Amino acid sequence: MAPLYLALMHFPVYDKNGQVVTTAVTNMDIHDIARVGRTYGVRRFYVVTPVLALRELAARILAHWETGYGALYNRTRRDALAIVSLTEDLDRTIIDVERNAGAAPLLLVTSARTRQPTLTYAALRRMIRDGDRPLLVVFGTGWGLTEDIIGRADHRLPAIRGIGTYNHLSVRTAAAIVLDRVCGSREEEEEACT
Amino acid sequence: MAPLYLALMHFPVYDKNGQVVTTAVTNMDIHDIARVGRTYGVRRFYVVTPVLALRELAARILAHWETGYGALYNRTRRDALAIVSLTEDLDRTIIDVERNAGAAPLLLVTSARTRQPTLTYAALRRMIRDGDRPLLVVFGTGWGLTEDIIGRADHRLPAIRGIGTYNHLSVRTAAAIVLDRVCGSREEEEEACT
Repeated sequence: MAPLYLALMHFPVYDKNGQVVTTAVTNMDIHDIARVGRTYGVRRFYVVTPVLALRELAARILAHWETGYGALYNRTRRDALAIVSLTEDLDRTIIDVERNAGAAPLLLVTSARTRQPTLTYAALRRMIRDGDRPLLVVFGTGWGLTEDIIGRADHRLPAIRGIGTYNHLSVRTAAAIVLDRVCGSREEEEEACT
Repeated sequence: MAPLYLALMHFPVYDKNGQVVTTAVTNMDIHDIARVGRTYGVRRFYVVTPVLALRELAARILAHWETGYGALYNRTRRDALAIVSLTEDLDRTIIDVERNAGAAPLLLVTSARTRQPTLTYAALRRMIRDGDRPLLVVFGTGWGLTEDIIGRADHRLPAIRGIGTYNHLSVRTAAAIVLDRVCGSREEEEEACT
């Protein structure tokens, strides 16, 4: 199976007016996506921000749950947060994946605004099952990844669609849905298709 | 299509020691699950708590986003929160669904601890597509729904499984995954099965 990595970018992303901004690192994003990543076998989940003070704050919170009182209080939280790494930008994240996996990752982006996906979820599912090249799936905070980051990607995944045109999910829930689509147990669907 | 309703129970649920408790209503749960519900065509999303003060607080927050300054600031948030209702307990929630849909709902529960599911996600997907009886999917906060609530359900859905045995998701991300499994666009999977 191809090793899977996630990155949550806090810069460069758009705000609601289309300006490029740096968003705040939030505790809830780290915890929720770490738990999802841990559930679906993600090797590392990178929280990416250029703001040193926010990386230090996040590191202190992680330490509380990993080695402080929190590790005794809630072991499932510690197990999830063990996959979290803090990085400064996308380039350093890619380098870290390469060091960890032994090969440069394919870069995959998701966006609620994706117009022309280049890869279906089913195809990514097969790439994970049958491949060995590491895969780095990148999510944006705020109003989403900049065109610059999207342009660097090897593949664009389809926007998550439900019923109708509303597709304003939180990044936490979008990440959960993407991971379940590509790594979730699909026994029932296989049964339904036969 | 069968009309779909969600309920998030803050009582009765277990805490980490197996005691029955009332959990706090959190802003993040309401926003995230409302957005997921709105994306996947859910008719109403009930936030269920017996604590009057918390229902009143939640109502004030909803009013801010629906008619206050927030409605101008972020329209997608207003659209999502429009499906939220505040109820006191499961019985009153069921009565409200019945009044809204014109028939009593089938009660479906999800739990990370579910041992013997009675319905696959694919079967629920077909029930929604082909049926007309309203369906109420109930999620628990804290360490999950009590056995009493689970025992009242018409159907138990399988626990969300990824890879391995870790399945400690936040209720926000679990609800997102369940909704995507039963209502998400599945073109790629259909393509993959043919």
